[in-house]
Amino acid sequence: MAIAQPYLLFLGDAPDQLAAKTADGVAQWRREGCVGQLRLPGCKADLGLPDLTVAAAAAQGARTLIIGVANRGGKISELWQETILDALDRGMDIASGLHNRLSDQPALRERAAALGRTLHDVRHPSQSFDVASGLRRAGKRLLTVGTDCSVGKMFTALALEKELRRRGHKADFRATGQTGILIAGGGVSVDAVVADFISGATEWLSPANDPDHWDLVEGQGSLYHLSYAGVSLGLLHGAQPDALVLCSVPGRPHMRGLPGRPLPSLKDCLALNETMARMANPDARIVGIALNTSALRESEAEATLKATADQLGLPTVDPVRTGVAPIVDHLLAS
Amino acid sequence: MAIAQPYLLFLGDAPDQLAAKTADGVAQWRREGCVGQLRLPGCKADLGLPDLTVAAAAAQGARTLIIGVANRGGKISELWQETILDALDRGMDIASGLHNRLSDQPALRERAAALGRTLHDVRHPSQSFDVASGLRRAGKRLLTVGTDCSVGKMFTALALEKELRRRGHKADFRATGQTGILIAGGGVSVDAVVADFISGATEWLSPANDPDHWDLVEGQGSLYHLSYAGVSLGLLHGAQPDALVLCSVPGRPHMRGLPGRPLPSLKDCLALNETMARMANPDARIVGIALNTSALRESEAEATLKATADQLGLPTVDPVRTGVAPIVDHLLAS
Repeated sequence: MAIAQPYLLFLGDAPDQLAAKTADGVAQWRREGCVGQLRLPGCKADLGLPDLTVAAAAAQGARTLIIGVANRGGKISELWQETILDALDRGMDIASGLHNRLSDQPALRERAAALGRTLHDVRHPSQSFDVASGLRRAGKRLLTVGTDCSVGKMFTALALEKELRRRGHKADFRATGQTGILIAGGGVSVDAVVADFISGATEWLSPANDPDHWDLVEGQGSLYHLSYAGVSLGLLHGAQPDALVLCSVPGRPHMRGLPGRPLPSLKDCLALNETMARMANPDARIVGIALNTSALRESEAEATLKATADQLGLPTVDPVRTGVAPIVDHLLAS
Repeated sequence: MAIAQPYLLFLGDAPDQLAAKTADGVAQWRREGCVGQLRLPGCKADLGLPDLTVAAAAAQGARTLIIGVANRGGKISELWQETILDALDRGMDIASGLHNRLSDQPALRERAAALGRTLHDVRHPSQSFDVASGLRRAGKRLLTVGTDCSVGKMFTALALEKELRRRGHKADFRATGQTGILIAGGGVSVDAVVADFISGATEWLSPANDPDHWDLVEGQGSLYHLSYAGVSLGLLHGAQPDALVLCSVPGRPHMRGLPGRPLPSLKDCLALNETMARMANPDARIVGIALNTSALRESEAEATLKATADQLGLPTVDPVRTGVAPIVDHLLAS
C-alpha cells in the first residue's frame, strides 16, 4: 500500500479538535505533504491549513483525500458522501483509518472502480503475509515500546525519525497503526492481521536495508496489557530491534481500559522488553525513556524526567517538551 | 460452533497413517463419538474403526462427516466431492480443519444451503470476538505451554481432562487448534483470529464456570518461538490460568522451522511463563512438566524424567509412557 501525496485533509463535520486527531497527526508530521483542509458546515476543528474546495485542491495537485475525522463507531457518515464522490471524480484516491470500510459503501466502491481510483482502508490489511522467518536481516531497527496503550509510541518514533534525518542519517518511520499509516503513506495495521502473521507482517514492514539505515518502528500496546500483549510481543519479535525506547505517562491511574490494574514500573517493563527482544536479537538494548508529561506543571515535569534518568541511568525525555535529541545522542554514541 | 456427534471419519485416499493424523486424534480421544471410518480405494491409513459407507453410517446415526485427512497444500480433493455430497444428502453436516474452506467450493456450498446443513471450517473462526476484558472469572483453568511448537500441548491437555474426569472432577478440554476442535466438537483456532482479539477469543473459549470446574486449555506455540509468540502470549493472558504444565521434547535440535535456534531451557521457560501468567492471575503456578520421550529408549526416558523432576522440583511425566497422574496429584493436593 502506497498512498499518493499530496493530501487534501477532510475534517467533515468534526464536533471538536479531538475528533480530527488523525488529520491533526498528518498535518503535524507531514505538513509539506498536505495542500490544505476541507471542512463542512459546523466543523469545529481547524488544522491551520488553507481551506480548499475539492476543485481547488485538485487544481493544486492533491492526489488523495484523507478521511481525517473519527465518527462515532468508526462509521462513514452519509454527509461525507458527496465530498468523497467529488474527490474521486476529480482524480483523487481516498484513504480512511475508520473501522467501517470505504469499499463496503456501494456508491463509493462503484465510482472508484469505474474511474480506476484506489480506496485505501488502512485499518484493514489488503494483502497476505508470510509466517515470520526469524532470520536476522541487514539494517538497524528501533522499536518504541510502552507500559500501556496510548503513551506516545507513534509520536516518539516520528520524533526520532525527524531528529535522525536532521542529523543527516538515513531513517524511516514504519507505521503499524491507522494514523501512522496515513502519515507515512504506507504501513500495516498489525493489530488487524491474522494472529499467526503478526511477526511476519512486521518483518515485511521493516525489511533488510543499508547497514547504517534506521527503521523507527511504531510500537503497539504493551507486553503488560491483558487485551493486546500478543500484538506487542509479535511486533517485538518481528521487528528484531537493535534499540528500544520505552514510552510511558507518569501518574496514569490504571492501564487503559483495565480499571484497577496499575501500570508496571518502568524498571520491570524495561527488563521484560529487553528479555523478550534478545530472543530475536541478542544485541538489543534500551536506549532511552520517553515520558508524556503533559499533565504535569513545568517544574514537576523537569523533576520527573531527572529522577527517572537518575534512577534508570538512561536518557529520559518528553518528546514534546524537550525533544528527543538526548536519546539520539545516546543511540549514535554506542 | 458446536459440531454434532457422532462422527463418520473420512480418510479419503490418505497415502499413509500420518496423512490421517487428524482422524487419528479424533479416534484416539473420542472413539465413543465415532460410528466408523470411510476409506476410498488406495487409502493406506486405518484407525481400527468399522469401515462404513455413507449410507451405513447415516443409518447408525452419524451426524457429521469429519474430513480427517490432510492434503498437500490444505486442499479439498476433487476425489472427495462425491462422498461429501452424499453425506450432505443423507443428513450429515461436514467439518474440516483444512486450510481451504469447504464453503469456498460452490458445489458443496450450494448443496449444504439447499439442504440446511452446516459446513464447519474449523480453521477459520466464523464469529467475531470482543477485546479481552482482563477481568477475573470464576472456575479454574490450566493451560499447557511449550518450549516450542508441536511438543504435545494438545495431547497433554486431553490426558489431563481424562484423568481429572476419571477421578470424578468436572473438567473440559478447550480446543485452540484444528484437531483439538474436531475432537472437542467446538473451540477456536486462536492463531486464525484477528490479532487484537487473541485474548478476547480465549476469554470466550474458557468462560466463568463452577468454582471447582477445571478448563484444560490447549496451548499454542511458545513464548520463545519467533514466528508465533504473539499467539502464545495472547492465549496465556486470555486463559488467566491458575495452573500451567510445560511441555517439551528432549533432544530436539532446534525450534520448529527455525534452524540454528535452540530450544530454551526448561528452567528459563518456566520462569518466563510464570512471570507472564501472573500479570493476569497472581496465583498462577507451574504444576508439572510433560515430556515427549518417544525418541528415547525406555531406560533413557526414565532417566530423563527423573533428572528433570529432581532438577526442577516438579512432577515430570511422559503422557504416553507414564500417564499424567502425578501432575493431577500435585494439582489437586495444593
